[in-house]
Amino acid sequence: MTIAPAMLDAVLARVDADLANALSRLKDLLRIKSISTDPAYAAECQRAAQFLVDDLAGQGFTAAARPTPGHPVVVAHDSVGTGPHVLFYGHYDVQPVDPLNLWHTDPFEPVIKDDANGRKIIVARGSSDDKGQLMTFVEACRAWKNVNGSLPVRVSLMLEGEEESGGKNLPPFMAANADELRADIALVCDTDMWDRKTPSITTMLRGLVGEEIEITCASKDLHSGMFGNAARNPNQVLAEIIASLRAPDGSVTLPGFYDDVAEVPDAIKAQWKGLGFDEKAFLAEAGLSIPAGESARSVLEMIWARPTCEINGMIGGYTGDGFKTVIPAKASAKISFRLVSGMVPDKIRAAFRKHVQDRIPADCSVTFREHGGSPAITVPSDGVYLKQALAGLTGEWNKEAVITGSGGSIPVAGDFKKILGMDTLLIGFAHVDDSIHSPNEKYDLESFHRGIRSWVRVLAAFAA
Amino acid sequence: MTIAPAMLDAVLARVDADLANALSRLKDLLRIKSISTDPAYAAECQRAAQFLVDDLAGQGFTAAARPTPGHPVVVAHDSVGTGPHVLFYGHYDVQPVDPLNLWHTDPFEPVIKDDANGRKIIVARGSSDDKGQLMTFVEACRAWKNVNGSLPVRVSLMLEGEEESGGKNLPPFMAANADELRADIALVCDTDMWDRKTPSITTMLRGLVGEEIEITCASKDLHSGMFGNAARNPNQVLAEIIASLRAPDGSVTLPGFYDDVAEVPDAIKAQWKGLGFDEKAFLAEAGLSIPAGESARSVLEMIWARPTCEINGMIGGYTGDGFKTVIPAKASAKISFRLVSGMVPDKIRAAFRKHVQDRIPADCSVTFREHGGSPAITVPSDGVYLKQALAGLTGEWNKEAVITGSGGSIPVAGDFKKILGMDTLLIGFAHVDDSIHSPNEKYDLESFHRGIRSWVRVLAAFAA
Repeated sequence: MTIAPAMLDAVLARVDADLANALSRLKDLLRIKSISTDPAYAAECQRAAQFLVDDLAGQGFTAAARPTPGHPVVVAHDSVGTGPHVLFYGHYDVQPVDPLNLWHTDPFEPVIKDDANGRKIIVARGSSDDKGQLMTFVEACRAWKNVNGSLPVRVSLMLEGEEESGGKNLPPFMAANADELRADIALVCDTDMWDRKTPSITTMLRGLVGEEIEITCASKDLHSGMFGNAARNPNQVLAEIIASLRAPDGSVTLPGFYDDVAEVPDAIKAQWKGLGFDEKAFLAEAGLSIPAGESARSVLEMIWARPTCEINGMIGGYTGDGFKTVIPAKASAKISFRLVSGMVPDKIRAAFRKHVQDRIPADCSVTFREHGGSPAITVPSDGVYLKQALAGLTGEWNKEAVITGSGGSIPVAGDFKKILGMDTLLIGFAHVDDSIHSPNEKYDLESFHRGIRSWVRVLAAFAA
Repeated sequence: MTIAPAMLDAVLARVDADLANALSRLKDLLRIKSISTDPAYAAECQRAAQFLVDDLAGQGFTAAARPTPGHPVVVAHDSVGTGPHVLFYGHYDVQPVDPLNLWHTDPFEPVIKDDANGRKIIVARGSSDDKGQLMTFVEACRAWKNVNGSLPVRVSLMLEGEEESGGKNLPPFMAANADELRADIALVCDTDMWDRKTPSITTMLRGLVGEEIEITCASKDLHSGMFGNAARNPNQVLAEIIASLRAPDGSVTLPGFYDDVAEVPDAIKAQWKGLGFDEKAFLAEAGLSIPAGESARSVLEMIWARPTCEINGMIGGYTGDGFKTVIPAKASAKISFRLVSGMVPDKIRAAFRKHVQDRIPADCSVTFREHGGSPAITVPSDGVYLKQALAGLTGEWNKEAVITGSGGSIPVAGDFKKILGMDTLLIGFAHVDDSIHSPNEKYDLESFHRGIRSWVRVLAAFAA
């Protein structure tokens, strides 16, 4: 069924009129401390799931918080809609908030304020990643139902709670409920706009391999005066291993690391050139000016089309106030690899583990712990849903929507393809300065408001 | 005045008879949480100082806790004794207790028990380093005064509270009170016996340079998906700097590091050979089997006569439970150098800082924080006090006392020479398995008991 322009306008008007209420609902969700990686917050994750179940059930969805071995997955279906079937995806869990002292306000007490450029923003952990983004499509559904009585297409939602903590329970859940969850297209709202004026659909995403290593040398902490020089120091061993992961030219040294990495086709490079990406401005956003990756590559290539190895955390010995002349027994690190299309997570993990194991002195030992693994994905750029969605976005933002890559990893997109056989459109309204995973995370009110309006239009476009 | 053998025997008998009370006093001191490096325990340091003032005043010493900009220095003088003037030194402060979960009992609730070899030990933070050791001479003084009415020589004591935290307030205190503190010889009880049967006097001690560095790259924590590859990772920068401090042969790479390091004379090497040091057993004590230092050197040389660089602590990024795909803004490390005779602390510190600064990318920065510096010291091996002390120790242990080196640093010995112009005898009764600076620190009851008896004899020997 085609949507009459007057109906579309009425739904959009409803979004505008209901914005204050929508913000109030978002703030309620942001107040829930759903840090999925920390077991201390398990009950908060449960609360966030229930909040969404209640909201969706109130809209008339059949909704439930479905148990997993970890945090629940919220699944909701609309029994009324017709036409194409879409599956919205978002995650209600958030990153930890440390270092807490760098937040200007309580991370779980959202505040709306003007940023330095006079833009309205909402500041809280999860405001952008991903509670603010997922509420854009929840609110779009509400507006459609309120005005039209029903959605213009068949809509299901799957909202998970372990995206920030490896998400290993979601693929089995999807496999066990494949027939129920399979739709014509998956819609993921967890990415950025190209810039403040230009909406975009991300069609390239890096994959991820997460690893934690713990190196043990002595059987106990030692006095560095008594044993220093003679006893192996695990901090030194760990530092040498980390240093050995990068060559002076910025490339990753693991044997075979680039074997399955294809060069970006010239046509795509040309398209990227047309985006007018400003390397200097991108780095300046982070207070930097010199790209750190492979010296022969552009920054856009580095973050969209080249794999990387990052040390996300490392610790060993005495790190409190003052000084302690200790040679610790252990040192550990959390290390992640971002993969590009063609790379096989298990192969990279195995190469990494061998590289580390080869560098452990004979009287020391290492343990490995897996923190997730997913391949990169590339979405076909010629599908009908992609074209309809681009048109919907272009209509809202009055600027041609573009197709981009992303350096981040959204493993679920790969799983949708592998487990459910469906493609994914990655459409998001976040910005690079949102400080996701950092103190003072924020989401622009414009992202939220026009994000909701964008989904209203995209759903209408699918019905055409 | 020469001490009559019967008097000496009577004082020794008094030590034996009073052992239970002496242990009770030691336990009271061990219960005080005098962790000097952590400002949260400042009042506990004050309590420990007052405990010692009260004990010494009760014995008839003129004693006071003298203020410094940090923790107080306990100074006590005996107004009655005659003959040579000795200055005892010990420290009432202790190391932090983390990792607390590895302690089998509360670190500040001392317990006396049998170790795996059936030896009686007292387990608590500070039991060996240095509360147990300093109480050996406090108890020796008590026994002399109780039996003889006075000490056989003139005795002063200086007990500091910042040995474990850089001790930067002690040298100015010594300089300001030089005339009051100057004695004929300083007696420091903070070292090990050669082995369980063989008492020793340490005549070589390594010096120390402590440094803390903090590397800042981005202006805030970044998402490793969005910025990974392009943004400089301070964990990687720090790891590369740490790795660059050691060459594959185990030597330290700082330019000029070994310039002022003399080879150990053949005669001393021969003497060390005679000690029958068991490299395998020494490393096995720490659960290790392969020496980590310069590959061409013996373990004894590594720890007594060669300088080292140790990473005492390092931290950067997310180190909690789970995983966080962050590129942190900062990473930091606590690094110490142990110096041997001839090396100049300021020169090593400057070489280190230049080495680090040279490796900081142009858009990143580093800050340095000093944590103490002291040169190595070598005590002349032909003085009369050394000979008398060796005789006293030999008398107690029925085994020839030996002259040894030590890998640890006792900066005060250098300061005694530089500021007060006096030599130091380093006589201690600890053992290499005491786990000082580690969980489950202990002191053998035999060390405590015969340590007290040893000081009773050494004081008598000085009076001869």
